[in-house]
Amino acid sequence: MYISKSFIPILKNNPSEAQIKSHQLMLRVGMIKQSSAGIYSWLPLGFKIMKKIEQIVREEQNRIGAQEILMPTIQSSEIWKESGRYEDYGEEMLRIKDRQDREMLYGPTNEELVTDIFRSSVKSYKSLPQLLYHIQWKFRDEIRPRFGIMRCREFYMKDAYSFDVNDEEAFFSYNKFFLSYLKTFKRLDLKAIPMAADTGPIGGNLSHEFIILAETGESKIYTDKRIFDVISDGTKLEKKSLKDLRKKYEQFYSVTDEKFDKKEFEGKVTESNRLITKGIEVGHIFYFGDKYSKPMGGSVDLPEGKKDFVKMGSYGIGVSRLVGAIIEAKYDSKNEVMKWPISVAPYDISIIPMINKNETSALDKSNKINLELEKNNIEALIDDTDENLSSKIKKMNLIGAPYQIIIGKQTEGNLLEFKEIGEETQKKSLEEIIKIIKERKANN
Amino acid sequence: MYISKSFIPILKNNPSEAQIKSHQLMLRVGMIKQSSAGIYSWLPLGFKIMKKIEQIVREEQNRIGAQEILMPTIQSSEIWKESGRYEDYGEEMLRIKDRQDREMLYGPTNEELVTDIFRSSVKSYKSLPQLLYHIQWKFRDEIRPRFGIMRCREFYMKDAYSFDVNDEEAFFSYNKFFLSYLKTFKRLDLKAIPMAADTGPIGGNLSHEFIILAETGESKIYTDKRIFDVISDGTKLEKKSLKDLRKKYEQFYSVTDEKFDKKEFEGKVTESNRLITKGIEVGHIFYFGDKYSKPMGGSVDLPEGKKDFVKMGSYGIGVSRLVGAIIEAKYDSKNEVMKWPISVAPYDISIIPMINKNETSALDKSNKINLELEKNNIEALIDDTDENLSSKIKKMNLIGAPYQIIIGKQTEGNLLEFKEIGEETQKKSLEEIIKIIKERKANN
Repeated sequence: MYISKSFIPILKNNPSEAQIKSHQLMLRVGMIKQSSAGIYSWLPLGFKIMKKIEQIVREEQNRIGAQEILMPTIQSSEIWKESGRYEDYGEEMLRIKDRQDREMLYGPTNEELVTDIFRSSVKSYKSLPQLLYHIQWKFRDEIRPRFGIMRCREFYMKDAYSFDVNDEEAFFSYNKFFLSYLKTFKRLDLKAIPMAADTGPIGGNLSHEFIILAETGESKIYTDKRIFDVISDGTKLEKKSLKDLRKKYEQFYSVTDEKFDKKEFEGKVTESNRLITKGIEVGHIFYFGDKYSKPMGGSVDLPEGKKDFVKMGSYGIGVSRLVGAIIEAKYDSKNEVMKWPISVAPYDISIIPMINKNETSALDKSNKINLELEKNNIEALIDDTDENLSSKIKKMNLIGAPYQIIIGKQTEGNLLEFKEIGEETQKKSLEEIIKIIKERKANN
Repeated sequence: MYISKSFIPILKNNPSEAQIKSHQLMLRVGMIKQSSAGIYSWLPLGFKIMKKIEQIVREEQNRIGAQEILMPTIQSSEIWKESGRYEDYGEEMLRIKDRQDREMLYGPTNEELVTDIFRSSVKSYKSLPQLLYHIQWKFRDEIRPRFGIMRCREFYMKDAYSFDVNDEEAFFSYNKFFLSYLKTFKRLDLKAIPMAADTGPIGGNLSHEFIILAETGESKIYTDKRIFDVISDGTKLEKKSLKDLRKKYEQFYSVTDEKFDKKEFEGKVTESNRLITKGIEVGHIFYFGDKYSKPMGGSVDLPEGKKDFVKMGSYGIGVSRLVGAIIEAKYDSKNEVMKWPISVAPYDISIIPMINKNETSALDKSNKINLELEKNNIEALIDDTDENLSSKIKKMNLIGAPYQIIIGKQTEGNLLEFKEIGEETQKKSLEEIIKIIKERKANN
């Protein structure tokens, strides 16, 4: 793709309205554009990244046997009255009257709607477990939207729901998502730590937030440092293996603000292991038993002939928020260098030719290189403008394709000036470059 | 996938509330579930089909150089006041007040929002043309939603927008979409005919609807039969080639209701070539020049130093509606047989083993076959229940994977009972079956 043909409206300077790194960078390189308070359009660069994140989230949901559905954004108030949450939810719920004066709302979450689908479709324990998820826009009418897409009103979220016959099976489902989340964030090159958390308006008594460390995070966290060394590799989708994984994490104190207890923290964690810092929530899972199935009548026939309310959990990942979270974790704002993980990078590589008027040999060379890259499924962004080399490099450092080829005066023969963003330039042949990128991509 | 593990809630009989074929089938096999009037959830079977349609639409947009973005569902009323459509749009627009009492709305279409994005990002003719599209949920508050997802309130749509420096370039963009639409519908195995159409609330003076024939269609159409024989093969993405394609179609009279003129029809079409029938609109394209760019101030610098308002068109495909349209076109409701085009089929093949209690040899055989199919990227749905063979076949005929393997008593040796839905059973080896399906898939 030529940069002149792309729709990547780049700003010369950091936008003054943005306070945190992700908001700055996203406006700066035209990933998003605000359309009204807390509501954004995703332009091609931001969209590509978000779609890649969405696909990784999807694959890891499918891998644990969850099935994808798609619930609408607009819901009827009736099911929320059944569950008892219509009044509770307060002003964050965007309430709507349609032309027939019916009370509708823009779904902030989907426990009610998915329970309604379940109760009309599933009658027997034999059809359990069921794991259903969807990836859909949600709306929460924040009083003070801020930090770009990190605390906005319309946001893109994966939410999953599990239905089981009893607690034991329900914990098995919960733990499947626990593992799936660790794998998802790992593929995004994020170190996300599960922390015991409050259940808030979702309800229930078991809950974990998945948090990545970031100074700009809104969650205050208290942990035993050693939790960062726990690894999930080798965990199997079996009850015991998953339980063991949970135990490995839960041996270390690790909670968010609301769950913090000073005495407990200081008792359980030696001083040298204590870490009090800030983080960004990227996922949140809940177990709440029959909180929704009971009032809404979601029951199944049991083997012995009785009936019981189905046991449910819910599992959220903020897909749009992850774009910002990755920037918060990876963006070197001092040097203005962003390096996207290859798994979600908008382009695999930038090609930066030095172009003077009437002298297109560097561009011709770029095109030839691009043809070879395309054959190897490597996507490049070529800066075909006649700006000077250093401002081109500056721009590409912000766009953040993880590799760069620079074609300047010194480029002769078969060796190219190649660099991984933030590293030293090396002389490499195109074959070597292709090999490096293909290997990196294969590991994701 | 085992049918017992899938979330495909099938009804024994046609639902009484559904009047047209697509609505009947979609409820019957659990593709959708109504959540409130004119609003539906998509269950796994329907979701899979819709996603495959979406992907084909996307690929054909990308092929003409359109770039994907994603605008939000909730818009501010301000830009609609700028364009002058806020009052015009009437009660079909879902109007919303947020907690700050700001006037918002659920976007029924996106001309205003995309013009706002354009005007703040693009300043020079040098950045033109720009073709931007998004695939997003829309809402139109129909007074009387009906026919399932064919005339519903929340629907999934691809809408694209073109920006050009003058009429000549704008027609070139228009014609690119014209070709792209023909290709899209062809890949969906639909014969969609472009017809001169009214521009309605979008505005402008050039417009085509793409219509497929269907008795249950809501559009009345008047055509010269010979238009069905026009082919677009070999058309190139060049001005002249695209112009010629338009001419090939436009030599034949072909209009919708609102454009119908009896005298003209009878004058231009000989009696034997006249066709008056009904159809379903699956796409609609518009050229409207500066209708939005002028009031909203979307202008670019021209080469000579002047400025001019950018010339725009818009291009819609109903992605969710296409699921219903394909059913209307392909479902044999008398024999209760649906055959999905392989390009969008939820599964490539059904495996239907005869299973009696304690006798699982047919299921074992199914699993072995499935392993081989998986190796060849062929996705199968296996009926692992102990229902009788004829009710299993009935069910699979509704689900509509285009091929079936039946494993009954007569299945011995290497030859399997294989059939394409609606055709005769043949004896084929698994290798032959795989070859047939792979070839069919490769052609899409």
